[in-house]
Amino acid sequence: MCTTMKLKAKLLNIQAGGRRIAIIDEETAAFLGVHSSDRVRISHKDRQIIAIVNIASGFPRNQIGFYTEISKMLGIKDGEKVEVQHAYIPESLSYVQEKIHGERLDETKIKAIVKDVVEHHLSDAEIAAFVTALHIRGISLDEIEALSRAMVETGCTLSLDKKQILDKHSIGGIPGDKTTILVVPIVAAAGFTIPKTSSRAVTSPAGTADRVENLCPVNLTIEEITEVVNKTNGCMVWGGALELAPADDLFIQVEYSLGIDPLLLPSILSKKKAIGATHVVIDIPTGRGAKIKTIGEAHVLARDFIALGKNLDINIQCAVTFGEQPLGYAVGPGLEAKEALETIMGNGPRDLREKATDLAGILFEMMGIKEGKREAEKIISSGKAERKLREIIEAQGGNPKIKPEEIRIGDKCAEVTAEKDGYVLWINNQHVAQVAREAGAPKEKGAGIKLKAKLGEHVSKNGVLFEIYAERDTKLEAALQLAKKLRPFGIGRKWEEQMLIDRIPTKVAHHKAFSIER
Amino acid sequence: MCTTMKLKAKLLNIQAGGRRIAIIDEETAAFLGVHSSDRVRISHKDRQIIAIVNIASGFPRNQIGFYTEISKMLGIKDGEKVEVQHAYIPESLSYVQEKIHGERLDETKIKAIVKDVVEHHLSDAEIAAFVTALHIRGISLDEIEALSRAMVETGCTLSLDKKQILDKHSIGGIPGDKTTILVVPIVAAAGFTIPKTSSRAVTSPAGTADRVENLCPVNLTIEEITEVVNKTNGCMVWGGALELAPADDLFIQVEYSLGIDPLLLPSILSKKKAIGATHVVIDIPTGRGAKIKTIGEAHVLARDFIALGKNLDINIQCAVTFGEQPLGYAVGPGLEAKEALETIMGNGPRDLREKATDLAGILFEMMGIKEGKREAEKIISSGKAERKLREIIEAQGGNPKIKPEEIRIGDKCAEVTAEKDGYVLWINNQHVAQVAREAGAPKEKGAGIKLKAKLGEHVSKNGVLFEIYAERDTKLEAALQLAKKLRPFGIGRKWEEQMLIDRIPTKVAHHKAFSIER
Repeated sequence: MCTTMKLKAKLLNIQAGGRRIAIIDEETAAFLGVHSSDRVRISHKDRQIIAIVNIASGFPRNQIGFYTEISKMLGIKDGEKVEVQHAYIPESLSYVQEKIHGERLDETKIKAIVKDVVEHHLSDAEIAAFVTALHIRGISLDEIEALSRAMVETGCTLSLDKKQILDKHSIGGIPGDKTTILVVPIVAAAGFTIPKTSSRAVTSPAGTADRVENLCPVNLTIEEITEVVNKTNGCMVWGGALELAPADDLFIQVEYSLGIDPLLLPSILSKKKAIGATHVVIDIPTGRGAKIKTIGEAHVLARDFIALGKNLDINIQCAVTFGEQPLGYAVGPGLEAKEALETIMGNGPRDLREKATDLAGILFEMMGIKEGKREAEKIISSGKAERKLREIIEAQGGNPKIKPEEIRIGDKCAEVTAEKDGYVLWINNQHVAQVAREAGAPKEKGAGIKLKAKLGEHVSKNGVLFEIYAERDTKLEAALQLAKKLRPFGIGRKWEEQMLIDRIPTKVAHHKAFSIER
Repeated sequence: MCTTMKLKAKLLNIQAGGRRIAIIDEETAAFLGVHSSDRVRISHKDRQIIAIVNIASGFPRNQIGFYTEISKMLGIKDGEKVEVQHAYIPESLSYVQEKIHGERLDETKIKAIVKDVVEHHLSDAEIAAFVTALHIRGISLDEIEALSRAMVETGCTLSLDKKQILDKHSIGGIPGDKTTILVVPIVAAAGFTIPKTSSRAVTSPAGTADRVENLCPVNLTIEEITEVVNKTNGCMVWGGALELAPADDLFIQVEYSLGIDPLLLPSILSKKKAIGATHVVIDIPTGRGAKIKTIGEAHVLARDFIALGKNLDINIQCAVTFGEQPLGYAVGPGLEAKEALETIMGNGPRDLREKATDLAGILFEMMGIKEGKREAEKIISSGKAERKLREIIEAQGGNPKIKPEEIRIGDKCAEVTAEKDGYVLWINNQHVAQVAREAGAPKEKGAGIKLKAKLGEHVSKNGVLFEIYAERDTKLEAALQLAKKLRPFGIGRKWEEQMLIDRIPTKVAHHKAFSIER
């Protein structure tokens, strides 16, 4: 029964990042009785949609501006007329308000919210209010479960005809963590199904998808993934375009800058549930410079993962791993792919091999195999893991015969050396990541860092701490400058000889290089 | 030390509602290491600005899209190159995070937040998170004071050369409340200064600015206002374009749909402070169907207003007024202006005249006049108030000789009648407002409602309850249909004869017709 206006569509030919936004001028808004961020119902022929209003002064009167999302949904051409009226606010917004007021939400209400997030009926501001309220008021385990299920239901799923589906996830934060490229082949070689989806780097120097892309294509459809997994038991693909839990991306978008992440658990577990995982090992790298700083915090997080997994019928075990320095020596997509390949061929850094067999071993023991780590070790030593990796590479469309030296590494190289004699006392993960990014990673796949010393090792004055690789001279120079400024390595005497850790006040730079990877 | 890219500017020629938004595609974002809603620093010749990033898939690579706000600030032409790099998050965002974590913010931090809101360095989502945190965590009186001051400092102010400046404010919600049109002339006629700014209707059938516009122009500049007030002691102008506390509009924009309003007090008082008010009477209409439902709630709100006023050096008194039905008989811009003019000429509804003299009387008593209400009455009866109103009308550029019958009322009229004999037991304010809007108010100034019966009056079956006025037949018909559906009047036996008020469950319609007017 609200005022209806006929307005002329003005197509803007820009995407609004999925948002359903319509632009009108102030007078039109007053006439319709809508505020900025109110909703309007737009009708065109037999189609109707709800859009969120942005009010722009100076926008032509009697027109309504549509971003691409809306014009596509309406199937409308520039200049055609639409009927517009004030639409009541979505029911889910009243549930957001309930959460703000401190109430617990039941499954029906949570589903309504997640559905309206995915269908873009809630604005960024409303989603941010919801996430803030979740953070401040807290989420019960029931709510987390309902959120996880709702995020699965509003997305695509992978349906493999298997009773048991294994998976591995790391909460991230450790440069050079290429463990997945070893764990997937080890587990698949043992006959278990492990359809691994991974992310690309946004603020880190390399995501697993960026690493694997040096070996084979990672941008597969659900159908292609099914085929690869049916053939090889495993896959290593990019999850970004699969829409496994699209609500998650929308939540991350608003909460990222707020530094809160109340949806961490539902976010991760909904994606595991969406691929049908029944047994999951979750890696929680822990330590100063990791996302989780103490073993106590790691245990709290692990307990929640396990409890939530039970409710979602996912058997979960967590691995708290050492996260105080990069894993292996290589950081950057190409360098890491090379190191992973070398390691699976029997010739790589100890820590990477240890961690991969630890995680694969945990999965094996969850499947009833005794001494899982030893089994994982055997699968590497026997060459079975390497053969399986090459099988997966081939199935995904890569060259199964690829040699480590064929992976392209940037041909510009510079060394960063120690300013004094001593021991490597700490390595700043974030600074390593920043230098690698400055060198061009992840976009320039050959760019990155190769460590020449790790924690506890002795270095001489002018000894090489790490090498920077780049594809372009300007990038190499910029990375070198940044390395000299940041000094990612702490060199000093042994702790017996030196007790002072830090002096306060220290200038704390305000920079967040990582978000929790999901 | 972040990655810098040269990108080609693509001007979108659309306003983003003041927001500073730049659009880039996903790959460019990954290269720069920015998430959606991260900031970038954009440099063009000698100008630099910070913008918030929207990531749009399919946006041309190596281009950056600018809304009008940004292209104007950079003074850039389509196709010119800019340098773009990831910018660190604004310091104020860490204060928003502190509030989310439950800390109290000091004045410096609150100023930083308000400044970044006004300068569009914080996104809608971040502002929403702040407002949600304020609502859940609570605001101390110190924080409210700091917010009020910061909102004044980031806006324009009116500087009149007067020791005492009076003002009147209503928190709104009552259709037909045209009290301001009487209070301003009464107070100004007594020799006091009262530079009144008002809002236009967004969701109500008429704001004071919409009403006054039937008598004279209301869209004055700060300089014109100063001139009018120096000449006549008073004014009645639209405050919307004066930028008195621009942060407020930005806060309202995000909090409106959330149904929370933690900034109500700073919002109102910053605007009073910005015009230099020293003595303010605040009208709190109270009752079922008003915004404040009980006298207890009204007292709590009043106490906060008074305490905050003290801190801001504003002497405040509050009037809790009867808010269970529209004020007077007229609802709609033209009808209300006419009724106000008639009343000040000595021939209007009792409740309007009572309320106007009550409020003016309180201001008089604050200024040391004994029996303020009687003084206000005298000023009306003597014709001084009318003469002052005509003086103000003339000074603002209107016709000082305007007669009530010259105010244009819609010539389409329909009656809504009682379905049975009985007493008017209740009148639903929101439904009255909705019907008046459906008839065309506030945009069609002649549209509205004229009540023919009020609370407690006896009506016969088929007796007229109210008339609907419209400028167009279609609008009249739509309003009539809505009136028949909503039935804004409750007719029944006296309460002695009928005890049952309501039966539950009742279907509660989800509609918010008012926001608190500021």
